[in-house]
Amino acid sequence: MSFRATLDFLLHDWLRVETLTQRPRFAEHSRETFDAVLDTCERIARETFEPANRRADVQEPHFDGERVHLPESTRTATEAYAASGMLAAAQDVEIGGMQLPCVVEMAANACFFKGSVAISAYAMLTTGNASLLMAHGTPQQIDSFARHEFSGRWFGSMCLSEPQAGSSLGDVTTRARPDGEGSEHDPLGPRYRLSGHKMWISGGEHELTENIVHLVLAKIPADDGTLPAGVKGLSLFIVPKWLVQPGGRLTGERNDVALAGLNHKLGYRGTTNTLLNFGEGRFRPGGAAGAVGYRVGAPGEGLRCMFHMMNEARIGVGLGAVMLGYAGYESSLAYAKQRPQGRPLGAKDAGRPPVAIVEHADVKRMLLAQKAYVEGGLALALYCARLVDDKRSGSATEQAEAGVLLELLTPIAKSWPSEWCLEANSLAIQVLGGSGYTRDFPVEQHWRDNRLNMIHEGTHGIQGLDLLGRKVVMDGGKGLRLLAGRIDASIARAGQVAGLAEQGNALARALQHLGAATKAAWASGEPRDALANATPYLQAFGHVVLAWMWLELALAARAALDAGSDTASGSTAAALYHGKLAAARYFFHYELPKITAWLAVVETRDATCRDLDPDCL
Amino acid sequence: MSFRATLDFLLHDWLRVETLTQRPRFAEHSRETFDAVLDTCERIARETFEPANRRADVQEPHFDGERVHLPESTRTATEAYAASGMLAAAQDVEIGGMQLPCVVEMAANACFFKGSVAISAYAMLTTGNASLLMAHGTPQQIDSFARHEFSGRWFGSMCLSEPQAGSSLGDVTTRARPDGEGSEHDPLGPRYRLSGHKMWISGGEHELTENIVHLVLAKIPADDGTLPAGVKGLSLFIVPKWLVQPGGRLTGERNDVALAGLNHKLGYRGTTNTLLNFGEGRFRPGGAAGAVGYRVGAPGEGLRCMFHMMNEARIGVGLGAVMLGYAGYESSLAYAKQRPQGRPLGAKDAGRPPVAIVEHADVKRMLLAQKAYVEGGLALALYCARLVDDKRSGSATEQAEAGVLLELLTPIAKSWPSEWCLEANSLAIQVLGGSGYTRDFPVEQHWRDNRLNMIHEGTHGIQGLDLLGRKVVMDGGKGLRLLAGRIDASIARAGQVAGLAEQGNALARALQHLGAATKAAWASGEPRDALANATPYLQAFGHVVLAWMWLELALAARAALDAGSDTASGSTAAALYHGKLAAARYFFHYELPKITAWLAVVETRDATCRDLDPDCL
Repeated sequence: MSFRATLDFLLHDWLRVETLTQRPRFAEHSRETFDAVLDTCERIARETFEPANRRADVQEPHFDGERVHLPESTRTATEAYAASGMLAAAQDVEIGGMQLPCVVEMAANACFFKGSVAISAYAMLTTGNASLLMAHGTPQQIDSFARHEFSGRWFGSMCLSEPQAGSSLGDVTTRARPDGEGSEHDPLGPRYRLSGHKMWISGGEHELTENIVHLVLAKIPADDGTLPAGVKGLSLFIVPKWLVQPGGRLTGERNDVALAGLNHKLGYRGTTNTLLNFGEGRFRPGGAAGAVGYRVGAPGEGLRCMFHMMNEARIGVGLGAVMLGYAGYESSLAYAKQRPQGRPLGAKDAGRPPVAIVEHADVKRMLLAQKAYVEGGLALALYCARLVDDKRSGSATEQAEAGVLLELLTPIAKSWPSEWCLEANSLAIQVLGGSGYTRDFPVEQHWRDNRLNMIHEGTHGIQGLDLLGRKVVMDGGKGLRLLAGRIDASIARAGQVAGLAEQGNALARALQHLGAATKAAWASGEPRDALANATPYLQAFGHVVLAWMWLELALAARAALDAGSDTASGSTAAALYHGKLAAARYFFHYELPKITAWLAVVETRDATCRDLDPDCL
Repeated sequence: MSFRATLDFLLHDWLRVETLTQRPRFAEHSRETFDAVLDTCERIARETFEPANRRADVQEPHFDGERVHLPESTRTATEAYAASGMLAAAQDVEIGGMQLPCVVEMAANACFFKGSVAISAYAMLTTGNASLLMAHGTPQQIDSFARHEFSGRWFGSMCLSEPQAGSSLGDVTTRARPDGEGSEHDPLGPRYRLSGHKMWISGGEHELTENIVHLVLAKIPADDGTLPAGVKGLSLFIVPKWLVQPGGRLTGERNDVALAGLNHKLGYRGTTNTLLNFGEGRFRPGGAAGAVGYRVGAPGEGLRCMFHMMNEARIGVGLGAVMLGYAGYESSLAYAKQRPQGRPLGAKDAGRPPVAIVEHADVKRMLLAQKAYVEGGLALALYCARLVDDKRSGSATEQAEAGVLLELLTPIAKSWPSEWCLEANSLAIQVLGGSGYTRDFPVEQHWRDNRLNMIHEGTHGIQGLDLLGRKVVMDGGKGLRLLAGRIDASIARAGQVAGLAEQGNALARALQHLGAATKAAWASGEPRDALANATPYLQAFGHVVLAWMWLELALAARAALDAGSDTASGSTAAALYHGKLAAARYFFHYELPKITAWLAVVETRDATCRDLDPDCL
């Protein structure tokens, strides 16, 4: 089954994306313009991203002390992406955008992620960076920086972590001092000089574009030189690699941002990952050491500004994980269909020719599991993107609900594919057997690349704390109630459909279990008790959400089948819908029951791990 | 806690290995000689294997068209191993062996595996190869081949798979024709000429030793040239890379075995993995093409001979997986103890210095999970090795029971660590966060190396079919009854111990569930029905066995604690025992409940996967 057929099913049969064109913002669009975007993106991804993906891995970024070298094919791919206009896909027409719904943008980006997640990252960082400036920058900052990122002239980076402060941003020590007399009135924004070290910066150095727009979290010291403690002291700064005049012309002067080194990674090698030194005096813009930066938003508002784009970045990470899983699924399915080996159980006549391994029950299991993980994950990413559209351009009620649901679902959209689509990649290797373990096939790279996703943009553990410690208790549990309401509505619909009522009932029980476990976790009101098993809670929550996704997809598939073969395009369409029903069945029979084990420790507030004396390890 | 402390706990507090010295075969041994062997092996592993492990990965085997190049440090390590005498550790003194119990040999090899599993593989293949010859070879074959493998003069390989026949050995097409007049009476064994292609041959080519003894499965064609169908047509042959005179002197003539290419792998790169061409005429021993081979055992008995050593090889694979997990556990524990980041929940004062991450509940969870996986896996490997000792040198009853139990437990000893100690490696990466994803730390290599273990020596799927399709039904379920009896005995002991009765009860319920699911799976008597979910069955069975291991270890730890602090060496010993109790608790609370989900599809003979039309994928 082609990826595009599944994408169309999700966008149209299920999410009814065309209805968005009734909103003024998308009035110029139609099914045809959406299709045209996807056609173009599929083609570019196939022609430039896919062929560049292995090279980006084996010809890892190399720093010769002066310059970072990337394969030419990476440049070809990123240039094709920029030329497609996708960097500004969701932006207003006035700034050169296509005013596409986020859900269509997300679907289009899925094509690129499938082609090469590591190469796509440059574009995703740039879009995220520039979108943040659209929300929090001044008109001059938008005109001088964001506009040139959307056009693909420059790329962007996000500089948060530091060597001594990975996930713990409150411990950031990069300093930003006002850059002397008149610095408050720089047309590009209040001007500062930054100094400090940033670690794990993806896209922090390259020559794919003539400039790089760094967005940097730093602290403004008090008069006595001390830094404010905690995350509330963080402010946000634009620090371009090359200095810029208002409007975006380059001054030709190099800013004091220097590459200290590249990280050499397990996977995801196509994206440079850097240690950057700000203000060490390697360059002396305006004759002085210190990286010139322009403040975005008010002092102390840095993290709030960053979080504006964090939700979308996290959904993007989830989608990247999904599409790595999808790529592995496609590879292993193709292999299984053409590789003859073994004979059917119960008909083991050694004299007969072997069958394709896709005929073996356990191989089917490994393929169906992958399908359930990756298509379910894709559904969730698109559902979240659809919520982003509601939040931006829906009715007042839609906006309010979408905002709350997005807060709740983002940790799942990020973490669940990072874990389970990685498992899908492992299953893809397993389907290929020894071949899957060689570098002659792409599945081992998918698996290596995907291992990053449980780590960056907030680790798995942090997603769990965010979900159980913040999101489910926020506003007296409003998000969870809203989600439960939507899930209940799906269950009610399933109750009317032959063959799906049982799955609806299973989901109802799971949801009730999850609700009870949430209460039990917080029974003492103590974060120490509740959060001791936040990660198993995250896993269980994720499986419940995914079961809901699969019930939704099963309902859509069943409805399409019932609409009759006269409208569906014959047996291929029927196979597509039956495939969705089979994957839903797989998820309910093989996956959803796993929540019992995860919730067991949550509801008992099991302290085995928390209370362990590290000396016993 | 040091690895050695755990090893000593398992060997002595738990398995009472010293009692083996009461058997005549081990009468010359004592706790002191066992300790000395372990001391030596730990030292060699630390001094030569550990330092060579990363180099063996980054300086992957390279074939220049004539020779295969390996790092010098790999040679240093394998030579140190051979010099230690460990290749013949379990062999009779007469053939140069140490007559060590298998369980001590296994413990010693664990040290090498932890240092470098890929480098250890050369020695493991050699021991397995030579041990097979001890069981099935003629005295002359033993004298001319096995003896020189045990001394480390030559290494061995096992040549089973072919490009068109990976797991399906019945489809092997390598041919062995009698080598003309008088070939039946060659002193080295009936002489044949072999031709065919062998794939995935580990250690199939290198220059670490002056010769390589290949053991090759091939078929002897009928008079009309046709090959017998299926595995019953397989015979076994010794095919040395360089030809050998009786006694083992090299003739100087190269056999017709040629390296067609090296496989370039995801991990485990230190072990050459080869495609070998036999009899293509690249070399012409005796003036003719065809690889000269000497038959071992009777025609058609090839697979039976191979399986003689397969159990031990599979336990060895399991132990390799365990020790990769252990190495990752050690690395991530050391990291977590020294890396400061974040503050305790409920005491998030940003002004206070951060704590070591080992203080965070979720990091403890990830470390305790690793501990439970790797120490539990190690216990199982040693338990199986102890059974090998019983099978070889126990009383008649012990021999019979050990043989049956080994058959049953081998698929678990192989598959369980391959899956869960791989998960341990993933958790180790997660503990290190971004650092774990770089090649600056060893944890990413452990994870890559370990991914092989679910594939080689019988894939995960094949282990499941072996367990549910063969081992649990063998002799009317004798093995399962025997195992249940031993587990029940442990449960009964736990019932007498404060704090362990609950775990005993949980295990009793799990065992009952497993038994019922086994019956339900076979209710229709149809392999198609029973085996449709053989892999989830394998997973559930594995978790039950590991829960039993942990109950056993908890009993041993509790007994040691109760024996009083006057004998234990103070607080370190107490921490060791409390660590075992904590890991047992972890396993019972977090892991054992997972079996419910796996068994659900087994007991319902769920056909979702088996009946899936591949066109729906």
